[in-house]
Amino acid sequence: MTSDNTARPTGPTVLKVPEGDTLERLVCETCGFIHYKNPVVVVGSVCVWRDKFLLCRRAIDPRRGFWTLPAGYLELGESTAEGAAREAWEEACAKIEIEALLAVYDIPRISQVQIFYAARLATPDIAPGEESLETRLMDWADIPWDDLAFPSVHWALHDHRAYSSPSPYTVRGNPDPDMIPRTP
Amino acid sequence: MTSDNTARPTGPTVLKVPEGDTLERLVCETCGFIHYKNPVVVVGSVCVWRDKFLLCRRAIDPRRGFWTLPAGYLELGESTAEGAAREAWEEACAKIEIEALLAVYDIPRISQVQIFYAARLATPDIAPGEESLETRLMDWADIPWDDLAFPSVHWALHDHRAYSSPSPYTVRGNPDPDMIPRTP
Repeated sequence: MTSDNTARPTGPTVLKVPEGDTLERLVCETCGFIHYKNPVVVVGSVCVWRDKFLLCRRAIDPRRGFWTLPAGYLELGESTAEGAAREAWEEACAKIEIEALLAVYDIPRISQVQIFYAARLATPDIAPGEESLETRLMDWADIPWDDLAFPSVHWALHDHRAYSSPSPYTVRGNPDPDMIPRTP
Repeated sequence: MTSDNTARPTGPTVLKVPEGDTLERLVCETCGFIHYKNPVVVVGSVCVWRDKFLLCRRAIDPRRGFWTLPAGYLELGESTAEGAAREAWEEACAKIEIEALLAVYDIPRISQVQIFYAARLATPDIAPGEESLETRLMDWADIPWDDLAFPSVHWALHDHRAYSSPSPYTVRGNPDPDMIPRTP
């Protein structure tokens, strides 16, 4: 920070429609860079050891202290299944085996597409990674439904129930809006 | 462009590991902006009118002149189904009704996740949009398999066959590598 109050802010901070474009984009008035923002992909998994579900208590915001499934942003050059396995490793030191694509959820309000896999834990060894306060293998009856971090954690756990039932499974999308649990 | 050859290039053009980060990112040495690149989401559809499939001949690179399904980048604030319907409108002036999620394909080489829907055309009225040279409703037997633009166009058309067969459908992922048709 300088003491020159007339200095222009740097970085793509100004909303403008660039020449030849139709939508407003963030533009840097210093260097002219146009920042095209895209929706992001979140990949995660419902990981099971025998009849227990892997849950992680978040060490970071948003929703620090609440329980979640291992999930995070897909990286460049990675498949969605590889990303889901990496997140399980990073957040819960868990080695998982991907079984099947479980669900695709749209969260357009925050421009996210969330892709969840059904997975098995290769071993019951789990431990909190840097982004987790605690990791646990829980019976269905012990899942802290009121302390889950995000609506999609509810959805994925319930869709996993349908997935593991004997009837043929079809991938799920967003549930009816009335079924979406509210979060602060 | 100025005549000063010592001027630093502007825009995020320099690969650096930002403080507190673990991966190299593109950084602008003029304004300090860090450009986090993320995988992108492509949304598309296999649109059917009676037994005919909607195909579009590309007016733009890459693969100009080759046949494709209506598909393109998901925009901010849009659901994947809305994006697929928008692309059908933009590329083929087609009004479509989304039926079901058809497939999720990983293309990690180019950091893309492609999400395809099965859809019905609301009417048979189609016309080339700005990005298409030609649009056509084709019988399965008339699909120009050797002139399709991308491997995922093959995959989605074939997965739609399985989808529309009488047995229960499960969403598809990437096929075996041996089944991937080669494109230039």
